Amino acid sequence: MSDKQKKPWGGRFCEPTNKMVEEFTSSIHFDKRLYRYDIEGSIAHTKMLARRKLISREDERLIITGLKKILADIEKGKFIFKPGDEDIHMAIEKALIKRVGATGEKLHTARSRNDQVSLDIRLYLREEIEQIIKMVARLKVLLVGLANKEDGTIMPGYTHLQKAQPVLLAHYLIAYWDMLDRDEQRLRECYTRVNIMPLGSAALAGTGLPIDRAYVANLLKFREISKNSMDAVSDRDFVAEFIFAASLIMMHMSRFCEDLIIWSTDEFQFVEISDAFTTGSSIMPQKKNPDVAELIRGKTGRVYGNLVSLLTVMKGLPMTYNRDLQEDKEPLFDTVDTLKGCIHILGEMVGHLSFNRDKMLNDASRGFLTATDIAEYLVMKGVPFRAAHEIIGRLVAYCIRKGKDIHVLTLRELRQFHKSFGEDVYSYLKLENAVNSKKSPGGTSRKAVLMRIRDIEGRKK
Amino acid sequence: MSDKQKKPWGGRFCEPTNKMVEEFTSSIHFDKRLYRYDIEGSIAHTKMLARRKLISREDERLIITGLKKILADIEKGKFIFKPGDEDIHMAIEKALIKRVGATGEKLHTARSRNDQVSLDIRLYLREEIEQIIKMVARLKVLLVGLANKEDGTIMPGYTHLQKAQPVLLAHYLIAYWDMLDRDEQRLRECYTRVNIMPLGSAALAGTGLPIDRAYVANLLKFREISKNSMDAVSDRDFVAEFIFAASLIMMHMSRFCEDLIIWSTDEFQFVEISDAFTTGSSIMPQKKNPDVAELIRGKTGRVYGNLVSLLTVMKGLPMTYNRDLQEDKEPLFDTVDTLKGCIHILGEMVGHLSFNRDKMLNDASRGFLTATDIAEYLVMKGVPFRAAHEIIGRLVAYCIRKGKDIHVLTLRELRQFHKSFGEDVYSYLKLENAVNSKKSPGGTSRKAVLMRIRDIEGRKK
Amino acid sequence: MSDKQKKPWGGRFCEPTNKMVEEFTSSIHFDKRLYRYDIEGSIAHTKMLARRKLISREDERLIITGLKKILADIEKGKFIFKPGDEDIHMAIEKALIKRVGATGEKLHTARSRNDQVSLDIRLYLREEIEQIIKMVARLKVLLVGLANKEDGTIMPGYTHLQKAQPVLLAHYLIAYWDMLDRDEQRLRECYTRVNIMPLGSAALAGTGLPIDRAYVANLLKFREISKNSMDAVSDRDFVAEFIFAASLIMMHMSRFCEDLIIWSTDEFQFVEISDAFTTGSSIMPQKKNPDVAELIRGKTGRVYGNLVSLLTVMKGLPMTYNRDLQEDKEPLFDTVDTLKGCIHILGEMVGHLSFNRDKMLNDASRGFLTATDIAEYLVMKGVPFRAAHEIIGRLVAYCIRKGKDIHVLTLRELRQFHKSFGEDVYSYLKLENAVNSKKSPGGTSRKAVLMRIRDIEGRKK
Amino acid sequence: MSDKQKKPWGGRFCEPTNKMVEEFTSSIHFDKRLYRYDIEGSIAHTKMLARRKLISREDERLIITGLKKILADIEKGKFIFKPGDEDIHMAIEKALIKRVGATGEKLHTARSRNDQVSLDIRLYLREEIEQIIKMVARLKVLLVGLANKEDGTIMPGYTHLQKAQPVLLAHYLIAYWDMLDRDEQRLRECYTRVNIMPLGSAALAGTGLPIDRAYVANLLKFREISKNSMDAVSDRDFVAEFIFAASLIMMHMSRFCEDLIIWSTDEFQFVEISDAFTTGSSIMPQKKNPDVAELIRGKTGRVYGNLVSLLTVMKGLPMTYNRDLQEDKEPLFDTVDTLKGCIHILGEMVGHLSFNRDKMLNDASRGFLTATDIAEYLVMKGVPFRAAHEIIGRLVAYCIRKGKDIHVLTLRELRQFHKSFGEDVYSYLKLENAVNSKKSPGGTSRKAVLMRIRDIEGRKK
Repeated sequence: MSDKQKKPWGGRFCEPTNKMVEEFTSSIHFDKRLYRYDIEGSIAHTKMLARRKLISREDERLIITGLKKILADIEKGKFIFKPGDEDIHMAIEKALIKRVGATGEKLHTARSRNDQVSLDIRLYLREEIEQIIKMVARLKVLLVGLANKEDGTIMPGYTHLQKAQPVLLAHYLIAYWDMLDRDEQRLRECYTRVNIMPLGSAALAGTGLPIDRAYVANLLKFREISKNSMDAVSDRDFVAEFIFAASLIMMHMSRFCEDLIIWSTDEFQFVEISDAFTTGSSIMPQKKNPDVAELIRGKTGRVYGNLVSLLTVMKGLPMTYNRDLQEDKEPLFDTVDTLKGCIHILGEMVGHLSFNRDKMLNDASRGFLTATDIAEYLVMKGVPFRAAHEIIGRLVAYCIRKGKDIHVLTLRELRQFHKSFGEDVYSYLKLENAVNSKKSPGGTSRKAVLMRIRDIEGRKK
Repeated sequence: MSDKQKKPWGGRFCEPTNKMVEEFTSSIHFDKRLYRYDIEGSIAHTKMLARRKLISREDERLIITGLKKILADIEKGKFIFKPGDEDIHMAIEKALIKRVGATGEKLHTARSRNDQVSLDIRLYLREEIEQIIKMVARLKVLLVGLANKEDGTIMPGYTHLQKAQPVLLAHYLIAYWDMLDRDEQRLRECYTRVNIMPLGSAALAGTGLPIDRAYVANLLKFREISKNSMDAVSDRDFVAEFIFAASLIMMHMSRFCEDLIIWSTDEFQFVEISDAFTTGSSIMPQKKNPDVAELIRGKTGRVYGNLVSLLTVMKGLPMTYNRDLQEDKEPLFDTVDTLKGCIHILGEMVGHLSFNRDKMLNDASRGFLTATDIAEYLVMKGVPFRAAHEIIGRLVAYCIRKGKDIHVLTLRELRQFHKSFGEDVYSYLKLENAVNSKKSPGGTSRKAVLMRIRDIEGRKK
Repeated sequence: MSDKQKKPWGGRFCEPTNKMVEEFTSSIHFDKRLYRYDIEGSIAHTKMLARRKLISREDERLIITGLKKILADIEKGKFIFKPGDEDIHMAIEKALIKRVGATGEKLHTARSRNDQVSLDIRLYLREEIEQIIKMVARLKVLLVGLANKEDGTIMPGYTHLQKAQPVLLAHYLIAYWDMLDRDEQRLRECYTRVNIMPLGSAALAGTGLPIDRAYVANLLKFREISKNSMDAVSDRDFVAEFIFAASLIMMHMSRFCEDLIIWSTDEFQFVEISDAFTTGSSIMPQKKNPDVAELIRGKTGRVYGNLVSLLTVMKGLPMTYNRDLQEDKEPLFDTVDTLKGCIHILGEMVGHLSFNRDKMLNDASRGFLTATDIAEYLVMKGVPFRAAHEIIGRLVAYCIRKGKDIHVLTLRELRQFHKSFGEDVYSYLKLENAVNSKKSPGGTSRKAVLMRIRDIEGRKK
Repeated sequence: MSDKQKKPWGGRFCEPTNKMVEEFTSSIHFDKRLYRYDIEGSIAHTKMLARRKLISREDERLIITGLKKILADIEKGKFIFKPGDEDIHMAIEKALIKRVGATGEKLHTARSRNDQVSLDIRLYLREEIEQIIKMVARLKVLLVGLANKEDGTIMPGYTHLQKAQPVLLAHYLIAYWDMLDRDEQRLRECYTRVNIMPLGSAALAGTGLPIDRAYVANLLKFREISKNSMDAVSDRDFVAEFIFAASLIMMHMSRFCEDLIIWSTDEFQFVEISDAFTTGSSIMPQKKNPDVAELIRGKTGRVYGNLVSLLTVMKGLPMTYNRDLQEDKEPLFDTVDTLKGCIHILGEMVGHLSFNRDKMLNDASRGFLTATDIAEYLVMKGVPFRAAHEIIGRLVAYCIRKGKDIHVLTLRELRQFHKSFGEDVYSYLKLENAVNSKKSPGGTSRKAVLMRIRDIEGRKK
């Protein structure tokens, strides 16, 4: 049984592992992505082992040198991963033993793959969240920049995709800033739960060897160490939490993209996405499609799917580690890649949008978008709101029948609906006034929006 | 068109709403649950309207008195909700107008159902999260209490549902304390995002009337006001975040329940759930089933489903409010009810568990659970870990062949595997020693676990 | 222990069931909906017991009379369900025993709740699928009817929500007929797997009493009996399959609704949904919202959620019946109700759509929708397709620069792009010709579409 | 703009596609897997074009030869795919043009990528379903084979994971045969909806060129052609249906695996999975883990996630093709790979299971598993079932108190519970008799099970 010799856990086994089983259970084709974190963790672990005299200083030197060479090999593409390696941890340990001999066999002292894989994922995810937070922050900056540029652009605001009230395009854009701001908060909070050092939990019980967990945490810049070994090796709630935070970011972006797609139609014509950010058709020569926005919208489903995958995997799993948990990594990696790709390209696309201010303004001026304003006008004249709403409702019905807009009605016509109408009503019917009257905090008046922009820009981070 | 009169928005319409449509779009059968929050919000809104002189003090008095009477009627079960009422907001406004006349028509001044429903959900969810945090905290206390009681109970620890190493039952229980502790943190963080006052956003743009949003926020004890009206009426990320936090709690509980179900089998016999917390069979007289644990495990699917529902609803929705968002409430309500029911009953069940300490100890003593300890013993004697692992692996294979346990092997037998074995190895083979050697923080030694329990009990909250 | 007496399975128990547990595990509040099927099944079971002499003819008469009276009571609303009843099966059995005495205790002979609940769900779902198939069929008829009415209406066809080629509105509507036709097929296939008689499987093993399963199947009009008792009591794949079929129907309807919502915008104005099928705003007097379409779209999330719930419940469940499976019913019931409600109201709404033929035609005539046709024109003149596509692409770019439509270009201008252009190209530029040229089966030519309509109408069912 | 030249749709564009956009929208890295189907479809399309004289016979010869050479190159690994190729369709068309010149530009005549991609997926999925059906059939054969081998093995049957009644292991295994049999049916039904030829739908409207769709369908062995071009290019219900069928297969396998995992515990010891199909621990030398079963159970989550992804993508998508639909392929490919891998390895593992017949029999004999049988004994003696159930319940409680099994009670003891007990009751208490009494169809008696096996083996397929 020559194959047995190769398995680091083969001592107890009488039969070699079936080749198919080896392939089926292998994770090396996807977890090799963790190589850098695995080696970083092993170096810190080695330093601790030497410090606690569990290995000699010479062992330490040999192992660390060996690990660094393996790292260099991998980064140069000179390291060959094989399915028989099982996973990244075994692949690197085996390479180390091959390189430095029996000394390499000491590396796995006082640890298990169970705590090692938790460490690797945490190191990886910690770095990725840091990057994603920066990317979200950048997207927010780009949105504020655009809002600044479009600070006077009036557009129809929609509810139920029906024109509702005139708003500033800048106000619309800042709404996304707010969503992304909450998303960023969620990422930061998730980060603190990722930033926990699990090594030393060993398989599930901790270890009887005199390790120094705080020292390892310090070397790897972790906030704190995990407090219960069984919890540390068995839970992946922090991975699910990250994928959920990613799901909300995708959801928010999908809504923006939905609007961009609708606004790019020939019927809306609110925005033109530049040629560089659209693609054509293989059959229809005239087409210019908002593929990027469509793909971001579509990829939302992908991230939701990853969330469901992981939640399903974890449901009803007995304690502690079970091999099912190997299925945590692909949904995580795919989520990180998808999310980063989408945030990045959306940020770029923001710079390739040309808003059609005239069309937006024109559309805002048709469709009785100031109806609420003159209802409020009546309220100011003492009419109860519900009565005012009813009156304006009838007035709108009248306008539709006559094919007129409200602002062209004579005062006489208006007074047929309510005697309180005075000359001053016409100023309420002006789009700009309608927009600028919404002065309270959070409203769409230019003043409120500019204050908000200033406020955002004034923040440090 | 007499029906028209009844619709508060009927002014513009020439045809009455189809009866089927009325029923299909009605939400009164489920959102009536929000009545208390709706009235609370309306009272605060009314006070603000009076303060800003948008209504008179007399109007204020009339409206508030009317609202309080409606509240009393609902709580006494004297209020009849009808499908034609559309939703809780309209039902209460209509009842108010009926009760106080035209003055009631002033209540809806400077607000829309869009900001009102966001307010109601936030008030509701804020209160529910407060309660759920308390319930999670109580479950944690119960788990620590049980850990305290079982502080010396040794059981087999499992990975892959195979016996791995001996651990303390208390250590196992504290692992759940840690999971629930993170769950509690997530709830608290979600709470801060729920605790935002949206009123004043009106339909989507804010209002032209001179409202005072900070005053309303203060009356309703909100942390702050929403900063963008379009965002405030259109997003439900805080609802999804809560359902996700609930999903993780359910997931954690489902794992505990899975273990309880397995431990209740005749084969394991680690725990007996009292008669009061089990049920019988309609056909098999001898059965005693762990239904409560099974149902908690099953209901995890339900909460996951609610999460998927809401995420799907929000994906790709154009701005701002769309009627699709009405579908946020039932998944939320069901999640709150399911989660509270499960946390509560699990807490009760914890008090009805009798652990079979002898069986646990006995099971921990069979199956070579100290194999890792003697591998570590060899490491301490200078054998590289991988070599030690291989040696002990062969030793275990030998024991299986001979049908012996490791601790009954003679020193001579042991030395056939490695010459470093000395008399002191036998103390490593004792279960208690194996457990207590795991002294590093997070390990399963009695000392470490007791320190952890003291640490937890020392916390304020 | 007086409570014990009430439990039909209490013999082995020393403690009464905890009240909270009783409530937590009770399903009577939702499974009472199955009362009719439960009684129907019990009557058939009773007839079989008598036929096999397991009970006397007098017992049979008493039990059946008792069950029928209970049925009548329930339908008259005179039957009171209590949480302590556990579930519909126990509630009815207890009522029967109360009514007919000890004879009622014989009803549960040779069966278990495990096979009984499977029977009830199958009877229920069988009937519901029959109804839903009829409803889908009716919706298909309504769509064809509308297609017939709009058989000459030309509209822009979209890909990527960008105008692509002119199509017939009838062609668009028939596309939904095809989707629903596949949905109907899926329902029929699911039906055959629902239509299996599980009774006689007892708890999991079958029964030692001399029952006659085929007779019961025959009385209840089942296609066949289940062939393995363990499978029969433990699987719910047929429920998941139904919810999945429902998910696809919802998905298809959600796409139609999305289009209706977009087409109802002021910018598109392709369709007006009648006042009776829209609703207004509580604040904006001019609004008329496509709520029904929005809710159908939103409720898609709800059905998806139900699917995820059930799939999660069943994943990794050990054999055979586990209490988790009680969580199958609420997602099923909710799916049935939601689906029926949506199909029904969408059918009604189809009759309340007024298409704006002029706007559609006008929009189809702008935006170079015939570009593909003149590319194909060049192909007919011998130009390779890719070259033709490139030429027309440049021609479109030219038109955009000049602000002209293709059909107003002179032959001379056209020939600058390719010398093959002749007078006959102008007929290719006519919308009607562009539509009617798509003559191959499945194409949008009026002839092909009318043939398809005739073909559909010619079908029996 | 030299880049423009490369895009087959670049005619209308003034700016080259942004590099990032090119990468973001590219699908070549995953859809290259479809190369064989793409070329197969193009060859059939070419033959049709020639037959309808849309290209010359010489063109046909050139194109087909070119395509075959490209196919050969790809299969030899000599074809280089680049991100700039967009997708498999464009990559092959570009390679063709490079190889055969302008003639290659004629290939895309009368088709669009929209119908081409639908064709490719259908060709691919058709072949994969054929293979998967064979694999499911093989797994069924293996299960029956095992059932045959274990046809007399008695084991405890479980409900709620509590011992319920004795059953045959063969009966248990046949239950999975039945589940897989329904799964196979679902695959076959899905297959008929996949087996539809969409080519000729072009972008969405059909084509004005005189194509022959039936001829293409015939060449590619499709059952029929799609009947509506808009439906054909926009729906992916058949993909979702396949992923759902896969989800149920995974769910069924996950339940079997859950049992295997539980049965492999040291406490159950019902089954030993051979060394070749288990793996060890990196730290605990004694461990032997059922990783294959765990991974199959875990991968269920992966397939569920893929289902949710695709359903989310399709929800609320406007007609017809949208780029979101590009997200259909990765979940599909991953599902196919995962499903095939799991079915295959589970089949292999079935041959590596050693059941511990003695332990199973012994466990079946403890725990009052014949309680139902003696309740039925009393029924045969005329005691109403509920009364019998109550009596036996008390009898079991008595045995538990006394620490005795039922079959060791004296007749006198038994008669204290009911006077009808006679000597014949002892034969009811024998495990074999208890099993073999379940004679009705679907029951667990050896006779019924063997008949079932014979029946299954007698089937053709």
